[in-house]
Amino acid sequence: MKLKYGVIGTGALGGYYGGLLAKSGKDVHFLFNSDYQEASRNGLKVDSVKGNFHLKNINAYQSAKDMPACDVVLVCLKTTVNHLLKELLPLVLHEKSIVILIQNGLGNEEELERQLPNIQIAGSLAFICSAKIGPAHISHNDLGRLVLASYNASQPEILKKISADFEESGVPCQLVDDLKLARWQKLVWNIAYNGLAVVLNTETDKIMKNPSARQLAFDLMMEVVEGANACGVPLKADFAFKMMEVTDVMDPYAPSMKLDFDYKRPLEIQYIYSNPVQRAAQAGYKMKKVSMLEQQLRFIQEEMNK
Amino acid sequence: MKLKYGVIGTGALGGYYGGLLAKSGKDVHFLFNSDYQEASRNGLKVDSVKGNFHLKNINAYQSAKDMPACDVVLVCLKTTVNHLLKELLPLVLHEKSIVILIQNGLGNEEELERQLPNIQIAGSLAFICSAKIGPAHISHNDLGRLVLASYNASQPEILKKISADFEESGVPCQLVDDLKLARWQKLVWNIAYNGLAVVLNTETDKIMKNPSARQLAFDLMMEVVEGANACGVPLKADFAFKMMEVTDVMDPYAPSMKLDFDYKRPLEIQYIYSNPVQRAAQAGYKMKKVSMLEQQLRFIQEEMNK
Repeated sequence: MKLKYGVIGTGALGGYYGGLLAKSGKDVHFLFNSDYQEASRNGLKVDSVKGNFHLKNINAYQSAKDMPACDVVLVCLKTTVNHLLKELLPLVLHEKSIVILIQNGLGNEEELERQLPNIQIAGSLAFICSAKIGPAHISHNDLGRLVLASYNASQPEILKKISADFEESGVPCQLVDDLKLARWQKLVWNIAYNGLAVVLNTETDKIMKNPSARQLAFDLMMEVVEGANACGVPLKADFAFKMMEVTDVMDPYAPSMKLDFDYKRPLEIQYIYSNPVQRAAQAGYKMKKVSMLEQQLRFIQEEMNK
Repeated sequence: MKLKYGVIGTGALGGYYGGLLAKSGKDVHFLFNSDYQEASRNGLKVDSVKGNFHLKNINAYQSAKDMPACDVVLVCLKTTVNHLLKELLPLVLHEKSIVILIQNGLGNEEELERQLPNIQIAGSLAFICSAKIGPAHISHNDLGRLVLASYNASQPEILKKISADFEESGVPCQLVDDLKLARWQKLVWNIAYNGLAVVLNTETDKIMKNPSARQLAFDLMMEVVEGANACGVPLKADFAFKMMEVTDVMDPYAPSMKLDFDYKRPLEIQYIYSNPVQRAAQAGYKMKKVSMLEQQLRFIQEEMNK
């Protein structure tokens, strides 16, 4: 059985992952927003460190209501527009569809389940450096693997097929059991560097080279570890040390929230900061420095909106 | 007995307080740095909300070694240059002199005592909005009272005379017993607003109008209260509420550290942040949000120095 894929949001993530699936012959349907004209005329371009490619003819849509019902719906939107999913997703789902939220943050699947109680949901974390650099034009600069886990899938065997499709397309895709652990693990890096890069108006290398900012990044990571543990998620302190090592050897990097800040786009504060802070607090642990970063980001976001 | 006053650092504070003392006929000797030429030619100008004045002839010095030994030495330097005091002060002291540190922060007197063990020291907190707006030219925009307390004065009765001199000169000067309490009280406001104004690149009114930043300011204040209590200083939570009220009705205000940041001057991180954080930690209480602000400020300071 060949799966029909829908990509909701063809940007830095959707363009790269959907593009690779389509390139390897999978049946992929792409929802565009402002880039629709360009995509329908000239297709999708991906400049990748693993090899550039240009898909001249793709299934491009300007509206979800024109899309076919898809077996697998890859949600590649920023969490800042997740309130749109309630209206959008039913247009592309059939009874057995599975929705995969390829997004950062915590609580994404729970929130979607509240809005659409009867759908199958999985979550995915993308370990990738990519960006949209023009209409229907993606630049992929580093990494690219996916971690994939069921949230409430009644037919979880489909995830094996999806994982195999990704692997065939050149995307390392690791199927894991514990979605919460996967999300909290990714938060260790995301919470430390996204917010600090915005508040200090800087990039990862400068944070790592400055003793105070470096220590602060580590303090934030350790709070995330403690927060996860309070929530019953078996995240180890080792993971924070590992993330420090990983970041030490990275090229200077502006995390996605820093790019959102630079381009005056909404910041993913709710899912990356507020939800983890709230969960940990409910479980009895106050992530004080993380909560301070959240407070600072909310101030900055509101000043950006003025 | 008429006291001989020395003013070490004739800027926003020294120019205002020393200027008022001289204006009312006290014997005042002013140490200038870059403004010496202007001061010796044209004297000292103070534009004050309480009435402008211009002292055409003042005792102005370019070097402490030309100054007479003074009974009272008002140190009105930023704490960022306190390492200079060890060399500077002995040039203007006699056996019974008292040094008054009119500075923000914590540990100022202890540090001076370590450097010069045999001198009489007092501390003072200035509740004032003033700034140097040109060479030997001070602008005084609001408030102005002093709180004065002995640190180790062997002849504390001199403080009564000094307080009376200030009062006669139009400066409300409250003599208090507990210098530590006075310093921690002032830190409640200083720690919250100085650092936030720098890190968020903003002023007091915007902090107060934004729910997240306002809550953060309050969180920081409450940590200072807890930190003081851990150190055995009987500061009450009421004081934080009072500072919120005071700031709510203030005109939009850039705290002194924000001005230092804007003019690329060194920030008073050590005395306003690091010393209180260390004292509280030694007493068993971690001021986590305050320590995060310290870490962020140290990063910003080092980036400014590049």
